[in-house]
Amino acid sequence: MTMAKPGHRFEVAVIVFLSIISFARPSSSSDEEKDLPTRAGRTFGPLPKVMASARNPITPEKIELGKILFYETRISVDGTVSCSRCHPFSLYAADGLRKAIGNRCRVNPRNAPTVLNAAAQISAHWIGNRTDVEDQAKQSVIGPPSFGMPSYADVENRLKEIGGYARLFKEAFPDDKDPITVDNFAAAVGAFERTLVTPSPFDDYLTGNPQALGEREKKGLVAFMGMGCSGCHSGAYIGGQKYMKFGLIEPYWQYTKSREIDEGRFVVTKDESDKYVFKVPVLRNVARTGPYFHDGSVDDLRSAEYIMGKIQLGKELSKEELGEIDAFLQSLTGRIPDDALRIPLLPRRH
Amino acid sequence: MTMAKPGHRFEVAVIVFLSIISFARPSSSSDEEKDLPTRAGRTFGPLPKVMASARNPITPEKIELGKILFYETRISVDGTVSCSRCHPFSLYAADGLRKAIGNRCRVNPRNAPTVLNAAAQISAHWIGNRTDVEDQAKQSVIGPPSFGMPSYADVENRLKEIGGYARLFKEAFPDDKDPITVDNFAAAVGAFERTLVTPSPFDDYLTGNPQALGEREKKGLVAFMGMGCSGCHSGAYIGGQKYMKFGLIEPYWQYTKSREIDEGRFVVTKDESDKYVFKVPVLRNVARTGPYFHDGSVDDLRSAEYIMGKIQLGKELSKEELGEIDAFLQSLTGRIPDDALRIPLLPRRH
Repeated sequence: MTMAKPGHRFEVAVIVFLSIISFARPSSSSDEEKDLPTRAGRTFGPLPKVMASARNPITPEKIELGKILFYETRISVDGTVSCSRCHPFSLYAADGLRKAIGNRCRVNPRNAPTVLNAAAQISAHWIGNRTDVEDQAKQSVIGPPSFGMPSYADVENRLKEIGGYARLFKEAFPDDKDPITVDNFAAAVGAFERTLVTPSPFDDYLTGNPQALGEREKKGLVAFMGMGCSGCHSGAYIGGQKYMKFGLIEPYWQYTKSREIDEGRFVVTKDESDKYVFKVPVLRNVARTGPYFHDGSVDDLRSAEYIMGKIQLGKELSKEELGEIDAFLQSLTGRIPDDALRIPLLPRRH
Repeated sequence: MTMAKPGHRFEVAVIVFLSIISFARPSSSSDEEKDLPTRAGRTFGPLPKVMASARNPITPEKIELGKILFYETRISVDGTVSCSRCHPFSLYAADGLRKAIGNRCRVNPRNAPTVLNAAAQISAHWIGNRTDVEDQAKQSVIGPPSFGMPSYADVENRLKEIGGYARLFKEAFPDDKDPITVDNFAAAVGAFERTLVTPSPFDDYLTGNPQALGEREKKGLVAFMGMGCSGCHSGAYIGGQKYMKFGLIEPYWQYTKSREIDEGRFVVTKDESDKYVFKVPVLRNVARTGPYFHDGSVDDLRSAEYIMGKIQLGKELSKEELGEIDAFLQSLTGRIPDDALRIPLLPRRH
């Protein structure tokens, strides 16, 4: 199934309709400005403190273990890959590359999305072929272009060889008889990633500080909602909640610098209507997590905005509109939790 | 020139002599124990707060910039290499690999030594082919197996493309008209690395807390000094102050699992007496920075200790001696400065 399937055309109609009514009205009267945080709050909702999951309850011990494992290279086939390799916090947990490069320099099929604010999405990866962050962490250790380990058992053996993990896994999973398992690895990394929420000036604005956004940012927010961007990039994470065809109006590869045509979610479902469908990405920290799109084919945020207007909304955005939307997107650059920014020291082997 | 050249044989004689007189005496009388911190202090000296350099004075702005640049991958040819790639603090600024793997999976000629406590050595790299940490940082950006950039000018251009660096370089080098240069990159990274001093329980012991080391650690310290290990591994960093032939008594490759014979400093000087000569490595944090030796050919610290006894001192260390020396070496695992453990966020491109 995909949420995109039934409604592509209907959604396009709604988006276009919203654009028209929005642009028919004057865009910055004082009443409208007072009302803006409330309206925006209805579309985006408040950012939670953590991205909780009933299936993987967060505990301090799991978070701590997960944070350590996030930096663990010794469970990759060539010793060079950890979660942090493709998701370094120094680059807002993306890697700045078009496509991530894993063990033995293998190139991944798509761009590495940031793991910040990622855990509450409908799925993980661009085409939704991982159910959640836990599934993503688990599968990555045996993923041929990522950690590249031959089997889950090999990963578990490597973890068991590093003496210090016995205690850490026991503390995080006290009810397990043999807690060093790949599932617990995934649960711990997932628990850590569920804490990676990055509140930004936009959230300060939504929660009662009208000064938190400047005039340009607010105009950008109005345009973002009015043009219909928020039809897809909605919710607290400003995306991540549905699948959508990339290139509703025109094929994406006519605008991006894509070197090959990626059929998107079709690869997973083999359903014709999923061709060129991708998960709508989270836009938090988007100003810091280029290059853009599933193949990292566009370097520059404004170019990405222009392309989105053109091929999703059928709109040629003006320089001024691009500048305002850009200003709004900048206001989504958030504060990474201090705890996540402190590098843990890994247990030693013997 | 190398400091090892004139004195190989003489030093061996001194080491052997020291071993004999040390082992002739009882090794843990109460008087001797009281005297031990003073004796050890004479050999190792106090650990400074930072590893200052007249050529590269440290300022807070330089340190801050250097710390940011330490994580900068965008100045490597394939975007995957930063200083942190081979010197992640999570693994005590070594990488756990036999030989470091750089851009495009190129394997470096030797094991990556930790950058902790490294800046005060006589030179950088195992064979001393870098004058200091600044020179190491500078040359690494164009080093084919490390960052792999075609030229210094390319590195400078990449830095200039990342808008945020203009201000950071200006603040760090206020007197420079055009501060974004590779030399300033190297000076900033060097300034940061000069702060990477890691005081350990051994330092607490030297500076007046007799409880900081347990009985086994103290026995190990006595053995380390008595057997002659400290003849080479001396000074505040417990090494890094001279060159020495690896395999004074027997060829190293008969004991290590070396796959090829590395001629060491001979590669630099072409002087026959420098064959198999390497810089004596710093032993601070040695328990956390395996695998060991210039080619990472030995995984296990105790095996490394055994081999050192055998081929440097001509001694077959007993299980008990190895255990004691091991306990002492563990006491050299230090505290990485909090400031260094906080990941900085990198400036964005535009």
